[in-house]
Amino acid sequence: MMPGLFITFEGPEGAGKSTQLARLVEALQGVGIAAVVTREPGGTPFGTRVREVLLDPGLEMHALPEFLLYSASRAQLVQDVIRPALSRGEVVICDRYFDSSLAYQGAGRGLPLPLLRDITQEVTGGLKPDLTLLLDLDPAVGLERAAARGQPDRLERADLAFHQRVRQGFLELARQEPQRFAVLDASQAPEQVAEAVWEAARPHLAGAAPMGGAALKL
Amino acid sequence: MMPGLFITFEGPEGAGKSTQLARLVEALQGVGIAAVVTREPGGTPFGTRVREVLLDPGLEMHALPEFLLYSASRAQLVQDVIRPALSRGEVVICDRYFDSSLAYQGAGRGLPLPLLRDITQEVTGGLKPDLTLLLDLDPAVGLERAAARGQPDRLERADLAFHQRVRQGFLELARQEPQRFAVLDASQAPEQVAEAVWEAARPHLAGAAPMGGAALKL
Repeated sequence: MMPGLFITFEGPEGAGKSTQLARLVEALQGVGIAAVVTREPGGTPFGTRVREVLLDPGLEMHALPEFLLYSASRAQLVQDVIRPALSRGEVVICDRYFDSSLAYQGAGRGLPLPLLRDITQEVTGGLKPDLTLLLDLDPAVGLERAAARGQPDRLERADLAFHQRVRQGFLELARQEPQRFAVLDASQAPEQVAEAVWEAARPHLAGAAPMGGAALKL
Repeated sequence: MMPGLFITFEGPEGAGKSTQLARLVEALQGVGIAAVVTREPGGTPFGTRVREVLLDPGLEMHALPEFLLYSASRAQLVQDVIRPALSRGEVVICDRYFDSSLAYQGAGRGLPLPLLRDITQEVTGGLKPDLTLLLDLDPAVGLERAAARGQPDRLERADLAFHQRVRQGFLELARQEPQRFAVLDASQAPEQVAEAVWEAARPHLAGAAPMGGAALKL
């Protein structure tokens, strides 16, 4: 059984995660690798319901219940989607994972990181991504981009100081685990970011199962 | 500032919690004490949304995400409703609290109790009820009563062995904290159970604030 490959995208609103994720999936298809694509919160029927609650702009919640909802969605996703796919040797690409909780509810909202890490350990069973692509961007730019897409959701409406703490939180996580993180400048043109994503992902693909089971040359 | 009084009702489906809770509120009104009545999951706009997800009979969820959703609703309820009322010296009566999680997700679904207790400590800030009224009932009888009320919800449809583990879980919690728990035989007529509830609650009311601030004689 192949060990699979687990890649996550992280970063602020408006950094282009969805675009870059789609381009990575395309690039993988180009070399014959199919990926399981999922996201947080969501990714399961249960997670989708939890996502609706989390993103409802009319709903007030404190930091700890917010974190617990993200964790609930994550626990279900790991057990039903991510672990089964990895154990089949597949490539899993997830739009946000626990680093987002550490950055948003930890650095951003001030919940203690040791508490978040303890609960995350239980929720994920210790499953970490092989590669985390952090699309780093000045929050002022990211929020402007997100606003241009239409009605902001609950998280997008939080103030700029909050989003600055979140950015620093992400960068600190990347400093602590340089092997796992690739920090990419998301202020560049999408084409350039996509190239940087591919450069970061490529070294991890040697063990990935190509479509149809043929040997993979990169 | 009065310390307030925190009373919870626990027990299986069909044990008559709602009926007995309403009767206790009435009895308190009879001696001039107003109570804040709430429930789990729910009790806040956030908790109400979480409740809908938890009780949806069409939704599959694992034990840990289920527990995390209950915990999220609880964290919001403690912070927004229970603690503020207690700090105003009020009597708070809650239909289910963390003992239900220990019994259902712990004893019933097999999640490790130390994990549930650790997260509960964070979620409640260590806030325990002054009195927990456990309406104890043979699950076979309780499920029959619940079924007679109509369409069973997700939890009511679980099998009998599960509900027997839950009952034993509740009884074990009561054995561990005999000072906090009153175990009442819920197979009795509602009138008799109500009397037992009142006998258990009365000694706790000496410090409770009467309506209008007059001295309270029991």
